[in-house]
Amino acid sequence: MSILNPSTSGFLFTDFYQLTMAQVYFEHNIQEKRAHFDYFFRHYPHYGSHQAGYCVFAGLKTFFEWLNKAKPTREDISYLKSLRGRNKQPLFSSSFLNWLEKECDFSKLHIEAIPEGRVVHPQVPLVSISGPLALAQIVETPLLNHLNYQTLIATKASRIKEAARGQMVIDFGMRRAHGLGANAGTRGALIGGVDFSSNIGTSRALNLPPKGTHAHSLVQAFMAMGGSELDAFQAFAEIFPDDCVLLIDTINTLESGLPNAIKVFQDLKQKGHTPLGIRIDSGDLAYLSVQCYLELKKAGLQEVSIVLSNQLDELVIQQILNQIEQKCKEHRLDAEEVISKLVFGVGTRMLTSEGQPSLDGVYKLTGIYHQEKWQPALKISNSPAKIINPGHKKTFRLYDKRDKAMVDLICLKEEELFSQEDMQIHHPTDPNISRIIHQKEVKKIEALQTTIQTQGKVIYEFPELNTIKQVRQQDLQNLDSGVKRLINPHIYHVSLSPKLFKLKMDLLKKYQPPRQTLDRELGFE
Amino acid sequence: MSILNPSTSGFLFTDFYQLTMAQVYFEHNIQEKRAHFDYFFRHYPHYGSHQAGYCVFAGLKTFFEWLNKAKPTREDISYLKSLRGRNKQPLFSSSFLNWLEKECDFSKLHIEAIPEGRVVHPQVPLVSISGPLALAQIVETPLLNHLNYQTLIATKASRIKEAARGQMVIDFGMRRAHGLGANAGTRGALIGGVDFSSNIGTSRALNLPPKGTHAHSLVQAFMAMGGSELDAFQAFAEIFPDDCVLLIDTINTLESGLPNAIKVFQDLKQKGHTPLGIRIDSGDLAYLSVQCYLELKKAGLQEVSIVLSNQLDELVIQQILNQIEQKCKEHRLDAEEVISKLVFGVGTRMLTSEGQPSLDGVYKLTGIYHQEKWQPALKISNSPAKIINPGHKKTFRLYDKRDKAMVDLICLKEEELFSQEDMQIHHPTDPNISRIIHQKEVKKIEALQTTIQTQGKVIYEFPELNTIKQVRQQDLQNLDSGVKRLINPHIYHVSLSPKLFKLKMDLLKKYQPPRQTLDRELGFE
Repeated sequence: MSILNPSTSGFLFTDFYQLTMAQVYFEHNIQEKRAHFDYFFRHYPHYGSHQAGYCVFAGLKTFFEWLNKAKPTREDISYLKSLRGRNKQPLFSSSFLNWLEKECDFSKLHIEAIPEGRVVHPQVPLVSISGPLALAQIVETPLLNHLNYQTLIATKASRIKEAARGQMVIDFGMRRAHGLGANAGTRGALIGGVDFSSNIGTSRALNLPPKGTHAHSLVQAFMAMGGSELDAFQAFAEIFPDDCVLLIDTINTLESGLPNAIKVFQDLKQKGHTPLGIRIDSGDLAYLSVQCYLELKKAGLQEVSIVLSNQLDELVIQQILNQIEQKCKEHRLDAEEVISKLVFGVGTRMLTSEGQPSLDGVYKLTGIYHQEKWQPALKISNSPAKIINPGHKKTFRLYDKRDKAMVDLICLKEEELFSQEDMQIHHPTDPNISRIIHQKEVKKIEALQTTIQTQGKVIYEFPELNTIKQVRQQDLQNLDSGVKRLINPHIYHVSLSPKLFKLKMDLLKKYQPPRQTLDRELGFE
Repeated sequence: MSILNPSTSGFLFTDFYQLTMAQVYFEHNIQEKRAHFDYFFRHYPHYGSHQAGYCVFAGLKTFFEWLNKAKPTREDISYLKSLRGRNKQPLFSSSFLNWLEKECDFSKLHIEAIPEGRVVHPQVPLVSISGPLALAQIVETPLLNHLNYQTLIATKASRIKEAARGQMVIDFGMRRAHGLGANAGTRGALIGGVDFSSNIGTSRALNLPPKGTHAHSLVQAFMAMGGSELDAFQAFAEIFPDDCVLLIDTINTLESGLPNAIKVFQDLKQKGHTPLGIRIDSGDLAYLSVQCYLELKKAGLQEVSIVLSNQLDELVIQQILNQIEQKCKEHRLDAEEVISKLVFGVGTRMLTSEGQPSLDGVYKLTGIYHQEKWQPALKISNSPAKIINPGHKKTFRLYDKRDKAMVDLICLKEEELFSQEDMQIHHPTDPNISRIIHQKEVKKIEALQTTIQTQGKVIYEFPELNTIKQVRQQDLQNLDSGVKRLINPHIYHVSLSPKLFKLKMDLLKKYQPPRQTLDRELGFE
């Protein structure tokens, strides 16, 4: 059977252990106990030489699209029925599979989440799910898959868009993205600030015009048939006279491609068209941009865009712009004017998030409703930073007088902030670090999560892409510029409220193994 | 519209410029000229501190599955019809779209390829496609997407399987893989040598049983309801008595998880069952493996497997095994015996190919049939290593007397090897390097490509996964062990035949810009 078969992306798009656990819960009759899970990530992506100072949340709508269509089909159930254990007996009982077929309806889950496009930080629950234990467990894998990847790419794209200083950025990444994940990658990139994509299907789905130029092969084809680069350019311009972007580096950028493009553009202008741009895909892009700008200007074609591509990412773009500024200073040119012509075609390094191709998002059980109250769940880890924050939580973003976000404060659901003038808030993973915050420093307090689905219904209206992009832009404006720095950013504060910190410490005392044992397990014998 | 909509993975799963170029070809009436394209990669994946010495080819069958279903639908065509240029006129003409709807049938392409599972090297054409120019162009993006990613992952998985010295490896990577690309990633991993996967849908599609244990949340759930780790283990064992793998690091691996697992396993044995394994997901995995092995043996449970997981990759596994050997020597234990119990659960770092999340595969026009012969096409690049090898080619693998592969030799299609006793073969990208090969050194000559599709039909029988895995194993046996070294491998030779080299040099002389110009473009003013 093909792995592109729709059944591989429906209910069965999950890890096997979700179903073995679900059966254990079912057979012990706790499958419908109300459970509470949080999705959060632990670290900003670290790209080797540089690390992000913020993330952009994305993937929520895609996850819900999965959720809506993920009811197990009869075919899924009969496949599960066919699975055998080592003893040749069915792994899944008929009664469990009957329950699954009848009761596996993810609309039963109560889901709260931070909207897409928002700037988010480690440890903060981005999505919280409560509902029947088995169902809330089963969604773990697809939730992580959809949210981790799109958030990873929205984050990378946001850095790239920042590095591009607002110039247009187009996603060209399909060819090296990870299979059909390319579509989710493009969506993440668009949420993160990229303007357009070459991916036709996804552009269509998101109601954006797809963009593109032509490949070297167009020029090669005409040349192999005895023609020239100029013939190829003319052929292209004839068909797309008002949308003509010419790739000028097939033979020689400055000696051949640029003069040929100028000739074609001048012809187009004479015929009343407006030439659109050139693209350069190799060589020293900073040097070539300035040279092309000068030649185009000399030819009266100052309106023509210069599309740059070839293994671009945020640092490469930053270097190109810095070098253009330096060159322009040397030659007494207006760097802003040169830069205003640039468009960046970004591919592989964005859609694969080169340097760090995964976000370490996790989905953790934090409580179970038992004996008429929520019982907090805690995973005691050998690694102290991995101990999760227990209980049912909500997160507030506090803004200072400059309207800059100052801290994301994770609290217990029923907690009231600033019961006193001063509040002691705590580091999310290191219990030894705390800080005092004064009510008068705080201009605004904003709840980050909103209810998406409750009582069987999605009550949230998923915004259009453009709205999501505006959300991201607003959040970036409210972020201290140090936090946005591409390399070695200022660390944004995420803190635990007094009550949440106390709950965590109480639970830790109850369960924590003595330090000596930990040392042994960690190999410090 | 949802990006999970099937239309995003059909004909429109491609870059926009494929269609603008196709229209240019159509309007100039060269859309059905026979063209020849090669798919190859330029470099082995480089993971930062280490680089692969070989790749494992994968993704071909998936690409064909795409090809089979990728005829443009009426809906696709009417979408393309709706696209407007800057002048508000339709971008695509009705006549082009009519042609596309009627003639876009990818079975017209003649396709040769190297079978999946084969060890492959840079510059060698892995897939060669000839057929109508516009159609052969349009398939570029999906071809690159499907082949680049699966080959990347098959390569990473092969390294991981080698590092694991043949012990079982299970793919756990879904949750951090790139969206629906997870399915292709799992297929690539299985081709590369991984034994099983936790991905249910893809396991089903590939006719393999899905595998998994349970999560920490199972233990947490029982504890939150007032139970213990032991209760959770017993609950799991009761439902899966013959398939029971227990995750022992939720509280404390050696003080709690291991003794509880031993208790449950002893109960299982008393009831006539065979306990399957423990899993350790944190801490010093080498130290913990040895300790668990000793305790399990002491308890008469030497048959129990030890599943290790937590950010594993080839280097981490190699380190764990080296450390186990060292510890065993110190304690006079049989390291082979300990290692034989191990199973590796590998996730994120395999399915995202951490360190290098993309393969730099490209698809290049190498010739067009014009004036009754094949005219070679060449892209002259500013970067000499990027100059492609022209013409219609075939590749032979030469084996030495030890049955080891000694060189992959790229030749012209009609070329005869060893017309003399000695043959001068050339470096694939550096014209200054050549070597003499003597016919008597060569024991066997093997053609690597085979015809997959011709004259409208797929004539190749795509092998089952198991056969593909055997192909990989055979090729690895025929590879010098130096080439398989995980770090700093010996460089396998890929060479150009005398005739291909001569053709390339002749074409270069015809088109190459003078060195001076190149220098200027590269910024060496």
